[in-house]
Amino acid sequence: MMDFALTILGVNGAKPAFGRFPTSQFLQIQNHFFLIDCGEGAQMRLSDFGMPASKVDHIFISHLHGDHIFGLPGLLFSFALNDRSKPLHVYSPPGLEQMIMAQLTPGGQLPFAVHFHVIPTDKSVLIFENDALTVSTVPLIHRIPASGFLFREKQFQKNIIGEKISEHQLSIAQIKAVKQGEDILLDNGKTLKNEELTHPDYIPRSYAFASDTMYNEAMIPIINHVDLLYHETTFCEDRKENAVITQHSTAQEAATIARKASVGKLITGHYSSRYKELDIFQDEAASIFGNTVLGLEGKTYKVGRLRKQ
Amino acid sequence: MMDFALTILGVNGAKPAFGRFPTSQFLQIQNHFFLIDCGEGAQMRLSDFGMPASKVDHIFISHLHGDHIFGLPGLLFSFALNDRSKPLHVYSPPGLEQMIMAQLTPGGQLPFAVHFHVIPTDKSVLIFENDALTVSTVPLIHRIPASGFLFREKQFQKNIIGEKISEHQLSIAQIKAVKQGEDILLDNGKTLKNEELTHPDYIPRSYAFASDTMYNEAMIPIINHVDLLYHETTFCEDRKENAVITQHSTAQEAATIARKASVGKLITGHYSSRYKELDIFQDEAASIFGNTVLGLEGKTYKVGRLRKQ
Repeated sequence: MMDFALTILGVNGAKPAFGRFPTSQFLQIQNHFFLIDCGEGAQMRLSDFGMPASKVDHIFISHLHGDHIFGLPGLLFSFALNDRSKPLHVYSPPGLEQMIMAQLTPGGQLPFAVHFHVIPTDKSVLIFENDALTVSTVPLIHRIPASGFLFREKQFQKNIIGEKISEHQLSIAQIKAVKQGEDILLDNGKTLKNEELTHPDYIPRSYAFASDTMYNEAMIPIINHVDLLYHETTFCEDRKENAVITQHSTAQEAATIARKASVGKLITGHYSSRYKELDIFQDEAASIFGNTVLGLEGKTYKVGRLRKQ
Repeated sequence: MMDFALTILGVNGAKPAFGRFPTSQFLQIQNHFFLIDCGEGAQMRLSDFGMPASKVDHIFISHLHGDHIFGLPGLLFSFALNDRSKPLHVYSPPGLEQMIMAQLTPGGQLPFAVHFHVIPTDKSVLIFENDALTVSTVPLIHRIPASGFLFREKQFQKNIIGEKISEHQLSIAQIKAVKQGEDILLDNGKTLKNEELTHPDYIPRSYAFASDTMYNEAMIPIINHVDLLYHETTFCEDRKENAVITQHSTAQEAATIARKASVGKLITGHYSSRYKELDIFQDEAASIFGNTVLGLEGKTYKVGRLRKQ
């Protein structure tokens, strides 16, 4: 399973409205599953959209405003009711542990460990790594400390061309070497170049989450060329002064970041409850960055696996 | 507006499942509006069902298990975002204030006062009173301190028969006296009995909420003859041993309480996530107490205003 798929669970800003939930997202990269932010009702949305919540071992929280965290206690308690025993890791700016643990009711000890990791919000640092991907922070500018997240696949192992194995009668050790990118010296003294034996590399895919934040060009070099960028678009041009006051972004500002960072696709979201209809976000962003799609709950945004040419 | 109407916002036990939300209820008595418990997503449900959340000034919390309180922070924050300024009163067993206030994020001061009232869970006491009704506690037996709530209308003011005013040329003072139940001594020495001048009294209506609790006959004299009883029915007969272990009730136990207390109508609820279909709750309860209705989200249960015969 080599999917790279972002499913939006909640896309409204500040509070729920018009059936839209506060922020949360479910991200699958290969066979790894992540939750990004956890607004109230995230566990219902995971269920509504058929996402495998129990597979999530790492939750990334952008900042401690209620609309990004109030779904966390309920999710933890449901994990407990479902007899989860494996540990859970939660990454956030400082203070979350105290807020969450204060809600452990009498006798409400969780049957699994929760590891809270405090992340910096003033610089981009690596905060998670496994065999398939890395996660780094993306500094944001908001009313309280806030951080986005950059998910980036590692280079895939070389994919050997099947026929070459029999053609050259490669040994297990040679096959292993080829997969690691090495050339092969045959007994006859001839060298087989790695690129003759393998398919072109898959291009590692990437996703950046940037919410909540005001317009911040400092993130551009960090998220440069990501395949998918979710950048908050709380307001449109008609209320751009609200964006300044509340330290949020307009659709056009998000699109400007997307354009300057040459991302593959921009996803809008974190819509203010002042907007019932959302098409205007798409229209305004697309006027600056054509490859913009509306962030909608229940919708999954995939990145295909492509080989280098 | 003389409605007496209970709207169920969330009716599932422990965690959300099958699209059912955790416990919360919206109660209108005349022009007073109350929230009972506030499970995760209560604010979405209030909105889904068109209930006037902003009119709620008093919230009654039965106990501090997450499925009854995790919607409270989000509701408070949405009140704040909606510029609420009037105070809010929250009644619960001890400990809620610390849990909720721990979630005030940096700069997250609420623009309205929240008064936390700690209620006893070992006896029935009056905890709220206004011109129209009283609210008393109903001791429950659960794994942690828990209390139900009894909402009872006060006796309505006497309703004077219009024609009697002109017939006897009653003065303002006399009308007021009649409304307060007094007889009238006319100048000619004749006495008009109050019952000749007024319509029969309206019967005060009542609602009792009993969740979460194991079977507890001690509540019977307290809730005796209420018009509506919501009594948790977490399990059916097939899992009655689970009810014992978790200190919940079966449908038949709830119905036994309803029958012994001679209530008007029993509403089931707090269904275990082990049950997808709910008809069995109705069937099992109705086998003991005929006037049982299934508690369902979005459904409103009304009590009409009747006069004494």
